[in-house]
Amino acid sequence: MNAAIIGASGYSGEELVRLLSRHPDVELTAVTSRSLAGKRVGDQMPALRHLVGKLTFTASNPAELAANPDIDIFFLALPHGVASEFADPLFQAGKTVIDLSADFRLGSVRVYEDYYGTHPAPHLLEAAQYVVPELADDKWKSASLIACPGCYPTSIQIPLVPLLKAGLVEPKGIVINSYSGVSGAGRKVDEHFIYCERNESMKGYAIPRHRHLSEIEEQLEKAAFADCIVQFNPHLAPMTRGISTTIVAKAKASLQSLYSTWEKTYAGKPFVSVLPTGNFPDTKHVSGTNRCDISAIYDPRTENFVITSAIDNLIKGASGQAVQLMNLKFGFDETAGLI
Amino acid sequence: MNAAIIGASGYSGEELVRLLSRHPDVELTAVTSRSLAGKRVGDQMPALRHLVGKLTFTASNPAELAANPDIDIFFLALPHGVASEFADPLFQAGKTVIDLSADFRLGSVRVYEDYYGTHPAPHLLEAAQYVVPELADDKWKSASLIACPGCYPTSIQIPLVPLLKAGLVEPKGIVINSYSGVSGAGRKVDEHFIYCERNESMKGYAIPRHRHLSEIEEQLEKAAFADCIVQFNPHLAPMTRGISTTIVAKAKASLQSLYSTWEKTYAGKPFVSVLPTGNFPDTKHVSGTNRCDISAIYDPRTENFVITSAIDNLIKGASGQAVQLMNLKFGFDETAGLI
Amino acid sequence: MNAAIIGASGYSGEELVRLLSRHPDVELTAVTSRSLAGKRVGDQMPALRHLVGKLTFTASNPAELAANPDIDIFFLALPHGVASEFADPLFQAGKTVIDLSADFRLGSVRVYEDYYGTHPAPHLLEAAQYVVPELADDKWKSASLIACPGCYPTSIQIPLVPLLKAGLVEPKGIVINSYSGVSGAGRKVDEHFIYCERNESMKGYAIPRHRHLSEIEEQLEKAAFADCIVQFNPHLAPMTRGISTTIVAKAKASLQSLYSTWEKTYAGKPFVSVLPTGNFPDTKHVSGTNRCDISAIYDPRTENFVITSAIDNLIKGASGQAVQLMNLKFGFDETAGLI
Amino acid sequence: MNAAIIGASGYSGEELVRLLSRHPDVELTAVTSRSLAGKRVGDQMPALRHLVGKLTFTASNPAELAANPDIDIFFLALPHGVASEFADPLFQAGKTVIDLSADFRLGSVRVYEDYYGTHPAPHLLEAAQYVVPELADDKWKSASLIACPGCYPTSIQIPLVPLLKAGLVEPKGIVINSYSGVSGAGRKVDEHFIYCERNESMKGYAIPRHRHLSEIEEQLEKAAFADCIVQFNPHLAPMTRGISTTIVAKAKASLQSLYSTWEKTYAGKPFVSVLPTGNFPDTKHVSGTNRCDISAIYDPRTENFVITSAIDNLIKGASGQAVQLMNLKFGFDETAGLI
Repeated sequence: MNAAIIGASGYSGEELVRLLSRHPDVELTAVTSRSLAGKRVGDQMPALRHLVGKLTFTASNPAELAANPDIDIFFLALPHGVASEFADPLFQAGKTVIDLSADFRLGSVRVYEDYYGTHPAPHLLEAAQYVVPELADDKWKSASLIACPGCYPTSIQIPLVPLLKAGLVEPKGIVINSYSGVSGAGRKVDEHFIYCERNESMKGYAIPRHRHLSEIEEQLEKAAFADCIVQFNPHLAPMTRGISTTIVAKAKASLQSLYSTWEKTYAGKPFVSVLPTGNFPDTKHVSGTNRCDISAIYDPRTENFVITSAIDNLIKGASGQAVQLMNLKFGFDETAGLI
Repeated sequence: MNAAIIGASGYSGEELVRLLSRHPDVELTAVTSRSLAGKRVGDQMPALRHLVGKLTFTASNPAELAANPDIDIFFLALPHGVASEFADPLFQAGKTVIDLSADFRLGSVRVYEDYYGTHPAPHLLEAAQYVVPELADDKWKSASLIACPGCYPTSIQIPLVPLLKAGLVEPKGIVINSYSGVSGAGRKVDEHFIYCERNESMKGYAIPRHRHLSEIEEQLEKAAFADCIVQFNPHLAPMTRGISTTIVAKAKASLQSLYSTWEKTYAGKPFVSVLPTGNFPDTKHVSGTNRCDISAIYDPRTENFVITSAIDNLIKGASGQAVQLMNLKFGFDETAGLI
Repeated sequence: MNAAIIGASGYSGEELVRLLSRHPDVELTAVTSRSLAGKRVGDQMPALRHLVGKLTFTASNPAELAANPDIDIFFLALPHGVASEFADPLFQAGKTVIDLSADFRLGSVRVYEDYYGTHPAPHLLEAAQYVVPELADDKWKSASLIACPGCYPTSIQIPLVPLLKAGLVEPKGIVINSYSGVSGAGRKVDEHFIYCERNESMKGYAIPRHRHLSEIEEQLEKAAFADCIVQFNPHLAPMTRGISTTIVAKAKASLQSLYSTWEKTYAGKPFVSVLPTGNFPDTKHVSGTNRCDISAIYDPRTENFVITSAIDNLIKGASGQAVQLMNLKFGFDETAGLI
Repeated sequence: MNAAIIGASGYSGEELVRLLSRHPDVELTAVTSRSLAGKRVGDQMPALRHLVGKLTFTASNPAELAANPDIDIFFLALPHGVASEFADPLFQAGKTVIDLSADFRLGSVRVYEDYYGTHPAPHLLEAAQYVVPELADDKWKSASLIACPGCYPTSIQIPLVPLLKAGLVEPKGIVINSYSGVSGAGRKVDEHFIYCERNESMKGYAIPRHRHLSEIEEQLEKAAFADCIVQFNPHLAPMTRGISTTIVAKAKASLQSLYSTWEKTYAGKPFVSVLPTGNFPDTKHVSGTNRCDISAIYDPRTENFVITSAIDNLIKGASGQAVQLMNLKFGFDETAGLI
């Protein structure tokens, strides 16, 4: 199967190139970037020199790509808004599209517009499927336009969705604190992101209305069949990769029920590790992997669960999860190219 | 005035040496350490070479120190339990003691024993004064045994105590997430704290019952005149210094009231900076200073305040605050030796 | 083919577990550690949770291991001296042994004893083969006791050996500065290696007689057919992984000759990247890979070449190279398990 | 005495604001920046909030500044070329100017033009004095235009100049490797300097002809009374501050002579620490200080001295040294504002 990455110049794009160029079932045929067209991938992403041979960035022309009979699957690593410019013609041409942007993550156009501005392709929303691979049943696999979840939302849904579905936590009053490595901001050239500003620095940002909040609440409400207005506090941490998330939710059941729900949900799932209570997930332990580690404690003083998770924001939070979705959709081994 | 630091071998001790050796009103006369007795301070703490001349660690003998007529004030940078072995004879000898351990931070022996084990000197508790300098009235200054607050509790009380006192936030259901640089663990030689384990790593620990919780709740309850059972989630962050704290509390008043209460409380206080809403405190900006930066937003969706603070855990969270207490008690300029 | 890792508790051992558990042609059958026997690998090395299943550390008994008919190849990740205790019986039993210690790296017992103390198994030296895979001809493949080069020596030999062989640089007066990430010290629990001591710190150590100097000089002299007394200055750098090496050598030919010698030597070698002059190898670009990136400039003012290289000390400098040696010896794809 | 900082928006400028606002003998009257004029210093440099009160950046008009009777001393923290636009009118107006740029560091216009382009003010070179405070005799104090040395050159001259003057090392064939924290690049907003590119990264750059080479060689030749063509290899290291320099020079005397020369030169100098042989300077130990730590070993195998030094590039390598120069020129305590 031949794959293309559209808009590959950022960190998620680079991670996709790494993963797909090592993937046993896929040929990485095209890597596009408006700004880098004509340049060697190995020169622009020297960490991948041994993987990419003479692969060269090409221009990003939606119509041409849609007309190319040799490419079967497209990964869009583009900003929201721009992604739709490609998703639309590719979808119309019958291609499989895995989109890493926010364009097709939300079911509600109104919510999208609240957080992101005018929706560029509302007519595609019905066909699009938002999929956290461990949490979806198999029906999504027939879709050809797949929205890959955001990084923070992945670190939150994997521990929390099964608990809300099973009614083990109170959907009201949930407080979520997340800490992201700087690569979460992408390859953004901004004074705020230069080394000397971020090293030895920890701070909140975009509180209380980070864009991912829309996606988080929409998914949690679906799981809870109830309103779910959460306090979501994202922060920047002085590391390259990783998201550490800590969730406080009122317990409606025992810790044992929580763990048995998790164990049932994640039995046989290669990329979710359920850690024993008191053993806290560490971003270092998931860095470079497609894993999400989760754990929980019950605090009898507050009657809360404190739930902690860790992912690599560029892998399970973006490109790894996109590859996992491809693997599942096309019947490859779920871990192909991801271990 | 002559000062001594007892148990100076750790990071707080080192910071005290730095601050006191530069202090205009104090002579650092003795620096003790059981393990380093006889060694030059400048050899053991090479970062202080230009400050300490030929100062040498001496042995730590409580009785001898108490009998020494040349030393007026003692800073105890010792583990809890051990601190009392010194505090007791020094106090009996009429010396001024500023204790950085937990031994005299709690008013309740029962709570101390719940969190730390048998209290080593309950008979001193009545004389001891626990003081966050910006939050205490002047009565404490007559005390000669002063408990310097913990690092996490300082980052929490400065923003939160005035709000609880003024009834602007609901004392129930408060959720606090704190992230500390690795120096918070002291100079502990343990596999968990070697560079390769902590670099690029973020994780929770000691949730839900970190020892500082006892001090946090005792103080918040005093401020609120009400029960105050908080969810306190400490974490380790990949940096040397700094604590970043994020507090979620149900609002009982407007953001404007919150800010005017803060401004009233901290007007003229040189070490508290109240940042405008939307401007998040950054550990990098307080690193190396005795400052606590605080800020808050109101989230109309959840009706919570999200309150953020940052301190340097070794300075405002320990040694700097201890020096500030000395300055205030003895009528020196509050900022002497701290700028 | 079944493989065992002996003494797997350190960072090189962990990296070997990672590489071998993903290797397509090898089954990782046993992982031994005296200190960790009986414990799950996934609990001790949580970064490998998704790779190791229920694999458990076993005790390290040389005689038993030698008698085990099910294991074909042994990787020794042990301290020097201890490695021989295993290498000897395993070798006598006809097993293939790839040793990551210094025990079989030096041809001269006298030099070994100068740098490391009494040689534990001089009788094996004749059978042992020291191999930098890109620099050796195929004869070594018949050996069953193979010494894997040290990390610093790898970063030095790959750029320098072909130039000495071809007579393009003066063997006298070579100056080498190397900077290593902290993992080079292993999982050593020592105050010197705790996070707060190494973060934001750069310093020399073990100058002028680091143990690797013995190996460096022996190999460079072999290449040069001449005395080769080098100045080797190792340093610690504030990062987890990576070695950055900068070599100054008097030029005896043009930069063009240097590059054409490199290109001839490394044509078709998947793990050496020759970068154009003026493009400096970056440890970040080789981190997590088995690559060695090399580059050179000619300085007409000094008539020196300045040659720079970068490797990941745990992969190309240790475990990756060991796996590469296995691949080559047994006719697997050279890159199997390494990409 | 009233001081102004011209072009204060960068990291050296920020460090000057910090140092001068705490200086006991100086009033910081004006802080200028073309890009930040009208903005509060405390808002732009939040780390200095407690120090700067309502100080506000003003516009940078050379003629107006020269005409201002209230300012006695000007620190120029400007790019080379631009510095002269201010130095010229200020000098003509009889002001004291301490310039941190390269404009007046070189005696030779020809060399300046080789490395930096057309010299903007060659007519001022005769009046200008280049001063490493520990190495100059007192004559420079009558000068009113003072060139503050570069960061790398400071870390090199302090150990090396006394040895060259005393003929203890061979001036030919010196090899210098230096590793700088990222703040050495200034507050440059460039993809190369964003956090994710520099974290966990070490690499050479600008080899073999970094601009500071001109200054290094000019000063070493002056000291040696001989040609001195050095190999200077600068590198970037993953830390905010600090320069670690390692110098290899052929020994022409004993290590004892070297040490006694250093001890004579630096007796009573508060900012140079001579460390015993085998004790390597660590950037962490000088970070935040105006110190230069130096040490040396003799290698009998190569007959070289290996000399190591460490400074904080922003303090002893820039702003601290500038303040030290002011202190010495005006008869303040040499350490005023620097401890």
